[in-house]
Amino acid sequence: MELPATPAATQSSSPRVSDLSEGELLQLILAQFHEAKTSVVGPGDDAAVLAPGGNIVITTDMMIEGPDFRRAWHSGFELGWKAAATNLSDVAAMGARPSGLTVALASPSDVPAAYLVEIARGFDAACQTLAPGCGVVGGDLSTAPVLSLSITALGNLEGRQPVLRSGAQPGDVVAVAGDLGLAAAGLSLLFDRCVDASGAASAEGIAGLWAEHPELLAAQLAPSPPIPLGIEAAQHGASSMIDISDSLSLDASRVARASGVSINLFRDQLGAYADDALTGGEDHALLATFLPGSVPHGFRVIGEVGPLSESPLSVDGVATVGRGWDPFDSSRR
Amino acid sequence: MELPATPAATQSSSPRVSDLSEGELLQLILAQFHEAKTSVVGPGDDAAVLAPGGNIVITTDMMIEGPDFRRAWHSGFELGWKAAATNLSDVAAMGARPSGLTVALASPSDVPAAYLVEIARGFDAACQTLAPGCGVVGGDLSTAPVLSLSITALGNLEGRQPVLRSGAQPGDVVAVAGDLGLAAAGLSLLFDRCVDASGAASAEGIAGLWAEHPELLAAQLAPSPPIPLGIEAAQHGASSMIDISDSLSLDASRVARASGVSINLFRDQLGAYADDALTGGEDHALLATFLPGSVPHGFRVIGEVGPLSESPLSVDGVATVGRGWDPFDSSRR
Repeated sequence: MELPATPAATQSSSPRVSDLSEGELLQLILAQFHEAKTSVVGPGDDAAVLAPGGNIVITTDMMIEGPDFRRAWHSGFELGWKAAATNLSDVAAMGARPSGLTVALASPSDVPAAYLVEIARGFDAACQTLAPGCGVVGGDLSTAPVLSLSITALGNLEGRQPVLRSGAQPGDVVAVAGDLGLAAAGLSLLFDRCVDASGAASAEGIAGLWAEHPELLAAQLAPSPPIPLGIEAAQHGASSMIDISDSLSLDASRVARASGVSINLFRDQLGAYADDALTGGEDHALLATFLPGSVPHGFRVIGEVGPLSESPLSVDGVATVGRGWDPFDSSRR
Repeated sequence: MELPATPAATQSSSPRVSDLSEGELLQLILAQFHEAKTSVVGPGDDAAVLAPGGNIVITTDMMIEGPDFRRAWHSGFELGWKAAATNLSDVAAMGARPSGLTVALASPSDVPAAYLVEIARGFDAACQTLAPGCGVVGGDLSTAPVLSLSITALGNLEGRQPVLRSGAQPGDVVAVAGDLGLAAAGLSLLFDRCVDASGAASAEGIAGLWAEHPELLAAQLAPSPPIPLGIEAAQHGASSMIDISDSLSLDASRVARASGVSINLFRDQLGAYADDALTGGEDHALLATFLPGSVPHGFRVIGEVGPLSESPLSVDGVATVGRGWDPFDSSRR
């Protein structure tokens, strides 16, 4: 795609952000960057890998009120927990041990200060629980019209090779650690039951929903990805790994494409929320490929890797198109 | 200050963000965090320092449209340049070499895609110019009601000790590298000359202002902090160092407080924009203390360090209260 080469804030003929997909926009942006001299693995995987030693893993993620969360549904504690957990999961998906987080937080001025303090408590609790030894090492505080969190997580490969998306081999098995579909099922419940007459998120009914479906709400609002199993997978020779954040079908397709292979999933191994898993996001389970017989404890086999074929992804042998979460689509709803 | 211990999004009695200063809010938030096992220097300096080896420096900063910048004044290129430069400066102020940046960018859907591409170009150009070898290693793209950038910068101490704010000693001289007051003078010009009848930022007249005062506008809109001089200062035994981001008076006071000393500045050494420097922010010059006779090329002496006294800061011997940029105050204007 051709874009004007000069600053174009005022050019009405330029395509808007809403005219492009996230992928198209990312491609245009990434084309501007020279590679950092220290870069071992650049943008495009769950995290980047940096010299010296190629031991440092870094990933960043933004959570914006509206497209990414609603304050009516999230306590501050749950929001902080989720922001930490989802970034820790990207570090784990490289086979690294999370070492520290930075948090930039911008808040409208009318947010209760206690809500921000609860966010901080949630951050800390998620680190202590999911990745002991990791913690918040720095941050920034600012103001914004909507609550915005930006998290950067660092990890240490401790001498291991990073596990990329691109290493899956025909003959490998596809395995997963963590829950499938629960987060999306929880989100559907929230959209069904905790909205007001206009369709806006409402805290009304959320306590009852927690009582009825604690597992689904926790998976959506304060997920607990299996962080230590990322290292376990690396130590068992995982040939590829990804954090399932946008949907099982989309993220499995990414592994297949990056690896130049095809992936076939076994539907009866995907659990009670198979449909939610295949097309819904935010599971933050770890999807990895292994030699058969090398699957570590904590992972379960859900598919197989085959040679490159016309369709990168199939379910029970039927070609399937990956689809899932796209913040740009969601903003157009 | 006591805050409710439970999630309080709906408690109307809780103090709001606007009821607290940034410092008060930060204190409440930092109290929630356990220290990361890897943390060598935690939150509170220009950047945190992480194990292994204590060689990794990390800093994060958010720029939000409204409190931090206005699209009417900033081309995308300048905005990206500034976001990179200000974070590189925090790494430099620790005595480290910048190694990589991550960028999280959230945009309203009606922003021209070309504006975001220009931001990326500005990021890359600032890295190439100010810190060759450093580059963008990762990022995230999202949507938000106002344009929001969150940058995390990493640096490598290459075996050097980090230069903290807390090491200034009585008898040291205070020296600065980089411009003083130009960024604030540029901002005043923009507020005087490039606003519409309602006082809102306007692109009208900005080309003329660039022609008249290129140095002042560049300092405000696309600053060029002396990044390599941070390493130079560390190698010359700087006892303390800080990136001047909130104002010379505020940041010099921070060094004095953290070091348990007093600082006296020489007004006639502060240049043509001394008042702007003392109370205006965003200079991103490096302020450091050295043994007399050890001041490296590129730094100029602007003051002296004395023993702890009642007032941490004075100018020509007259006690002065540090004041400058506070995003929370600015949002209340």
